[in-house]
Amino acid sequence: MFKAVINAETLRDAMEAVSSLVDEVKFSITEKGLEIKAVDPANVAMVSLKIGADAFEYFKTTPLEIGVDLVRLNDVLSMADRGENVQLELDEENHKLRIGVGSLSYTLSLIDPTAIRKEPRIPDLDLPAHVTLPGGELRRAIKAAEKVSDHVILGVSDDEFYMEAKGDIDSLRLKIPSTELLGLKPGEARSLFSLDYLEDMSKSLGKAQEVTLEMGIDYPLRVNFKVGQAIEVNYLLAPRIEQE
Amino acid sequence: MFKAVINAETLRDAMEAVSSLVDEVKFSITEKGLEIKAVDPANVAMVSLKIGADAFEYFKTTPLEIGVDLVRLNDVLSMADRGENVQLELDEENHKLRIGVGSLSYTLSLIDPTAIRKEPRIPDLDLPAHVTLPGGELRRAIKAAEKVSDHVILGVSDDEFYMEAKGDIDSLRLKIPSTELLGLKPGEARSLFSLDYLEDMSKSLGKAQEVTLEMGIDYPLRVNFKVGQAIEVNYLLAPRIEQE
Amino acid sequence: MFKAVINAETLRDAMEAVSSLVDEVKFSITEKGLEIKAVDPANVAMVSLKIGADAFEYFKTTPLEIGVDLVRLNDVLSMADRGENVQLELDEENHKLRIGVGSLSYTLSLIDPTAIRKEPRIPDLDLPAHVTLPGGELRRAIKAAEKVSDHVILGVSDDEFYMEAKGDIDSLRLKIPSTELLGLKPGEARSLFSLDYLEDMSKSLGKAQEVTLEMGIDYPLRVNFKVGQAIEVNYLLAPRIEQE
Repeated sequence: MFKAVINAETLRDAMEAVSSLVDEVKFSITEKGLEIKAVDPANVAMVSLKIGADAFEYFKTTPLEIGVDLVRLNDVLSMADRGENVQLELDEENHKLRIGVGSLSYTLSLIDPTAIRKEPRIPDLDLPAHVTLPGGELRRAIKAAEKVSDHVILGVSDDEFYMEAKGDIDSLRLKIPSTELLGLKPGEARSLFSLDYLEDMSKSLGKAQEVTLEMGIDYPLRVNFKVGQAIEVNYLLAPRIEQE
Repeated sequence: MFKAVINAETLRDAMEAVSSLVDEVKFSITEKGLEIKAVDPANVAMVSLKIGADAFEYFKTTPLEIGVDLVRLNDVLSMADRGENVQLELDEENHKLRIGVGSLSYTLSLIDPTAIRKEPRIPDLDLPAHVTLPGGELRRAIKAAEKVSDHVILGVSDDEFYMEAKGDIDSLRLKIPSTELLGLKPGEARSLFSLDYLEDMSKSLGKAQEVTLEMGIDYPLRVNFKVGQAIEVNYLLAPRIEQE
Repeated sequence: MFKAVINAETLRDAMEAVSSLVDEVKFSITEKGLEIKAVDPANVAMVSLKIGADAFEYFKTTPLEIGVDLVRLNDVLSMADRGENVQLELDEENHKLRIGVGSLSYTLSLIDPTAIRKEPRIPDLDLPAHVTLPGGELRRAIKAAEKVSDHVILGVSDDEFYMEAKGDIDSLRLKIPSTELLGLKPGEARSLFSLDYLEDMSKSLGKAQEVTLEMGIDYPLRVNFKVGQAIEVNYLLAPRIEQE
């Protein structure tokens, strides 16, 4: 059994962090909360989301796994008004999730969890350089880089975080000294990433007050942030090869 | 002769209630006010609109009929600012309607009323169940049902109003108990309707504080509401055959 | 050398006045400020823009000319937040303009000024009738005329400014008496203009508190207005031949 109540907007924001990368996911639900781990179809980006039981207004469950189509779930969640709660209740027999929003009761057919792509093992990388900055600022930099190129270099040098995008015609460079960052652990870091993926991630991380980037030299980028108080999101993005 | 002044927004909202179903209509104007009766091209929905003479700031007319292209009229009305009045004056000789908005004077060519589809005789049905609810709530339920299906069942059972939409995969059920309705006259009622038409109607009824639905078993749906204080709108929507 | 700081929104609004007509322009920069003169590809409209040195927060230059792609420049300026300043610095050696917005540094490749269409000589016409009105009101009238036709007559008669648009079906007439204008110098004036061009111009002039129109009989229209306090824009629009 699984029965829970949560603020609709919180759940929507949490799901958005995942649905920007994958459509169909497995919810792993235990008494500790709800967890999603997924990798995008091209194997470039991974996402891990944890909604602790205390992020819910009400939460009661036995350990279980359900397969959910996030596009359809987001469709239902979009019907809730600001501040409204959403009731979730699993109908195990019929493989359906009942979603109540106000006087609406929506029945979402579940996907067989074995039909969903296997959850990735998220590697436990120890990345040397860490940068913490407001999500809005990172999002803006990503948007700026997109005007110029499809790829962007993220790096740390001395005591600043930098971003470089070189297009065929124009180029962009962003430098944020440590004094203007929320946090910096200096280290050797410079890697190239696809702006498509960063842009997908930025929809969600752009709302976070603090985003931490963990980087190395030609190493994956790890992005950590929270949705609201109790929901943790981690992205891991594979680097691209820098061509001269 | 016909000469009138009315708040532009009021007239726009009134015309929108009709133009969601038909483009070309006949205005029947008498000293009591302006009346439109029309049926949509597929003969599924009828609309009847009455703007009483007292909804106008100024109203003077002889009994007459004019044919109006609502798309072009709405185009002109959209140029008025919030709160602004619109002057209407018939130029009988040239078959034109002069529309004044502030310092703009727009001349709208009229359509020969005999070239417009005959006004429907709106049947005087005595439908058993009546439900009154806020227009915004009905609109929201219609929007929710559209996420799931093309058709929706509206019905009354015991002391609640319900709506059911069944899609190929998911389904939706809305129940509003009489305690949460603005009014309920219980009766046997359950009929299937096209969501396309309900959605068209909902643009207009969604702004009304009170909407009354009159229903029966596999019978047409009658929808009554007001635009502002003095404008009455009635829709009549034919049912669809429910297939199991 | 050229180095300047200016409010990003001011520069964006100024560039918009030009980019509605032409994409690639020559900036003529002297110690007095920055000047652009350009003619649209069809030779129907000319624009002249002057940003005086005192419109800048900081301004230091030697006399020079640079070729700029306004689409790309506007793209960069759109990244600035409201109220933010933008730093401009010419890198003469590499034919680039460095544009700094906050911690972003954008490098814009310049166009060879000799590859840009020659600046027009803007004729010094002495037009008899002058009309001054709020930009927003002119913009609204242009939008209204577009609902009816592709062309519009602008004219002055006795003590009013008028606009006439005749479509195949409907027509529009706007009259503003001198008492409702900000200024009127009466004179013989009636000319036909393309609404496409007026609409392009209206994006920018619609924000101006005062716009002055100078007109004659079948003569070009001159439009003068300011962006902010210190930026002067002049448009000159060729008339069309009025057909009966």
